[in-house]
Amino acid sequence: MTTEEQETHADAPSATQVTGRGDMSPEEFRAAAHRVVDLMGDYLETLETRPVLPPIEPGSLRPLFPASAPEAPEPLDRILDDYRRLVEPNATHWQHPGFMAYFASTASSSGILAEMLVAALNQNPMLWRTSPIGTELEGVVVDWLRQGLGLPDSFDGLLTDTASTSTLIALAAAREAAGIDAAADGLAARDGLQALRVYASAEAHSSVEKACMTLGLGRASLVRIPVNDRFEMRADALDAAITEDRAAGHLPVAIVATLGTTSSTSVDPVAQITAIAERERVWLHVDAAYAGAVALLPERREPFDGWERADSIVVNPHKWLFTPVDVSLLLTRRMDQLAAAFSIHPEYLRTLDRVAPVRDYTNYTPQLGRRMRALKLWVELRWFGLEGLRRRIRHHLDLAAELAAAVDADPDWERVAPAPFSTVCLRWRPAALEGEDLDRANEAIMDAVNRSGEVFLSHTRLDGRFVIRVAIGNLRTERRHVERAWELLRQGARSVEADASLP
Amino acid sequence: MTTEEQETHADAPSATQVTGRGDMSPEEFRAAAHRVVDLMGDYLETLETRPVLPPIEPGSLRPLFPASAPEAPEPLDRILDDYRRLVEPNATHWQHPGFMAYFASTASSSGILAEMLVAALNQNPMLWRTSPIGTELEGVVVDWLRQGLGLPDSFDGLLTDTASTSTLIALAAAREAAGIDAAADGLAARDGLQALRVYASAEAHSSVEKACMTLGLGRASLVRIPVNDRFEMRADALDAAITEDRAAGHLPVAIVATLGTTSSTSVDPVAQITAIAERERVWLHVDAAYAGAVALLPERREPFDGWERADSIVVNPHKWLFTPVDVSLLLTRRMDQLAAAFSIHPEYLRTLDRVAPVRDYTNYTPQLGRRMRALKLWVELRWFGLEGLRRRIRHHLDLAAELAAAVDADPDWERVAPAPFSTVCLRWRPAALEGEDLDRANEAIMDAVNRSGEVFLSHTRLDGRFVIRVAIGNLRTERRHVERAWELLRQGARSVEADASLP
Repeated sequence: MTTEEQETHADAPSATQVTGRGDMSPEEFRAAAHRVVDLMGDYLETLETRPVLPPIEPGSLRPLFPASAPEAPEPLDRILDDYRRLVEPNATHWQHPGFMAYFASTASSSGILAEMLVAALNQNPMLWRTSPIGTELEGVVVDWLRQGLGLPDSFDGLLTDTASTSTLIALAAAREAAGIDAAADGLAARDGLQALRVYASAEAHSSVEKACMTLGLGRASLVRIPVNDRFEMRADALDAAITEDRAAGHLPVAIVATLGTTSSTSVDPVAQITAIAERERVWLHVDAAYAGAVALLPERREPFDGWERADSIVVNPHKWLFTPVDVSLLLTRRMDQLAAAFSIHPEYLRTLDRVAPVRDYTNYTPQLGRRMRALKLWVELRWFGLEGLRRRIRHHLDLAAELAAAVDADPDWERVAPAPFSTVCLRWRPAALEGEDLDRANEAIMDAVNRSGEVFLSHTRLDGRFVIRVAIGNLRTERRHVERAWELLRQGARSVEADASLP
Repeated sequence: MTTEEQETHADAPSATQVTGRGDMSPEEFRAAAHRVVDLMGDYLETLETRPVLPPIEPGSLRPLFPASAPEAPEPLDRILDDYRRLVEPNATHWQHPGFMAYFASTASSSGILAEMLVAALNQNPMLWRTSPIGTELEGVVVDWLRQGLGLPDSFDGLLTDTASTSTLIALAAAREAAGIDAAADGLAARDGLQALRVYASAEAHSSVEKACMTLGLGRASLVRIPVNDRFEMRADALDAAITEDRAAGHLPVAIVATLGTTSSTSVDPVAQITAIAERERVWLHVDAAYAGAVALLPERREPFDGWERADSIVVNPHKWLFTPVDVSLLLTRRMDQLAAAFSIHPEYLRTLDRVAPVRDYTNYTPQLGRRMRALKLWVELRWFGLEGLRRRIRHHLDLAAELAAAVDADPDWERVAPAPFSTVCLRWRPAALEGEDLDRANEAIMDAVNRSGEVFLSHTRLDGRFVIRVAIGNLRTERRHVERAWELLRQGARSVEADASLP
């Protein structure tokens, strides 16, 4: 009986031999991985020939796959062929230079190399002992980034998966810092516990609301502070809201200031907000998930003045620092409050490593297990150097300024918000159209641009108006791509105009 | 001026050219990635020559790294050399066949290949539109696994990062299902809201407690139900606790049954617990993060009888299904309650994809962004086939049974708990020692085994006694590794005996 036959025909469990396909041999792995590298290289080289958004309908993919997992192993050739045939063409190409939707998230080549190593090492730096290098390297890169962002060494921190988790951790820590022993006693049915309040601008990200929902504060705890005509939080309104809530007997738990909101990248007045937070002794969390990368540029730090006095700050390397998804940086001056919110010490996680102060990162996170996210930052920061990252970011800022100027110069288009960073909010506004007709026209324009396959844009609403966002920040995006986006937008407008037979 | 000089000397931001090192060219990437594959192959081939635990002290690594990030780019050679010199030797080798601590977590070769592709694709399947294939393939593999585990098609589900997150989501959904509108109104300062209660055994995982802390239920909400002498939850005690709590006016929110506890892999009587949960109309969450993989084996499903009536179940593919960290499978019959807990619809995430029913997975998770975790399961399930996975798991079960029998046959050793799966809890117990001396002796034995570098074991406490766990489940662990672990344990006992000059 050949090995193959044994694999196929051995039915009974056996105490003396293992049949059925096992892992690859080292030689098989090496050969397969070299093939996979070529697939990866082909993918990255052919990005621009692909439509950024796959032209398919929801629900069209699942029927292409078998309804059940295979019982028998399949040849690697078939798996990789299916990958090329079914997976690649049906991905939204975040790596494409024409990706200008949401906020860009690029996996740089050096970041991809690091992820390859991470997969082979398969670390879980939940405890120092379960990954000494994963743990200590996290300390290294967190501090490298802190310095790069111009923040004082009173900030420590950690890496999480996403800004949502970073903000959730920050608000959980704020809840502890408010002195209500929430981790111990919970929030329900507690005599004398006041209603809790979290303050964020009307333009703050949905992750703040989600964190309130998750943490048992509820959507009701979130006070949305009005913004000015630049979509920035009104510090006077924040002040008034806190005063009013205190008078009503509520307990302010945290303020979230956003530097670079998702809709328009507006910048809350963090220095004024810091002063209020300090006076009121309320935790200040700064959401700079997207725009924080700009603080790497000393000449562009003015919008960040005051954030160094925040209690916690989130900046996402997997956005504008070109690190593969997922990695978010949470900096804080109050690691002790994070520990109060999340540390538990069951016996099976105790280690004998107490001779020196040991950092076990799981004590600061809602999750026990963790990926080794430090390696990709370490490799990337060394590959680019801080200067390399700064110059990419400067280039994106320049491209956005150029686009903003072009929009401003065109009488049929308007810029709907300031563009302090690399995102331009715009809409077509010919004299002949207004109100909902304008919204519908802009929706049609954006749809036409996206159907081109060359560029992918997303939208928002500002002051109730449908607004197209051009979010520049993909590592591969160059001037020609932004120029092409602008051309496609104007083309789209012309065809909408023609269709509507406008005067 | 050469390109290199431009990169080094161009100081001023420029609107017309980008200097400083950018991303690799496609050719550079391909060459670098092939080199990285060889590093990965070398690592996987040399695993057994490495000590499972690096012989270093906490704090010894950070000083080996520069205090600040480099300003200028560094050559790839130097980065990869440092990787080999500083990273690999200081990792805890989860991939090592001698890793028998905690629960095993192996990255199979096919899983590593898939992670490489994931890094290059850099998907974020938060919305269908942001990754159609990431979204629909998740539906495919979740259903493949559901069928493989023998669960009915009333279960839907999703992939999360860790069991901690899966359990947190389940308990957040339970909170909504309890009808208290927690996501909307929060838990604090609500007139008439009762104290909330979650029930889990005294042996349940710390992630249940952490979820209670995070969700604002608090540690106080967690009622630890006593276990029997097999460390299984006592259904009668659960019944009594709920009755007592109801009489006291508290609100039962969820019961967590564990199939395979972390300390001893004990199995709560899920059929009895299900009956109580149904009668009481309380959400039942089943934590089978480790042992759930065994349900792939039709002949071993008896311990799982009744879990098909649970509201939610967590099984971790990154444990005993050999998938790279991180991926956890959350199955549930009540996706609507997950949505009640986590869905938000800000304008900037609305899409025009409403023609067909669209699944946007972010509506079911505390995070907005997500890694594409489906691909590695799809590749792995096809590489191994279900039969391949089953045979590996059977082999581990056999090895554990053999070790348990060897321990039982040795009069100086005792098995401290049943071994229903692949983890054996044992301790040295010579007639001459008892109490704390025994604990200290076993601690010394475990320490000696771990210092050997050949095997890594961790411990727990059961009935207050220090207990060594031999957790088999690494893809690479074969009979000789388990035999060697047993040999090292007995060697350790002999040297402890010699040191202590026992009679």
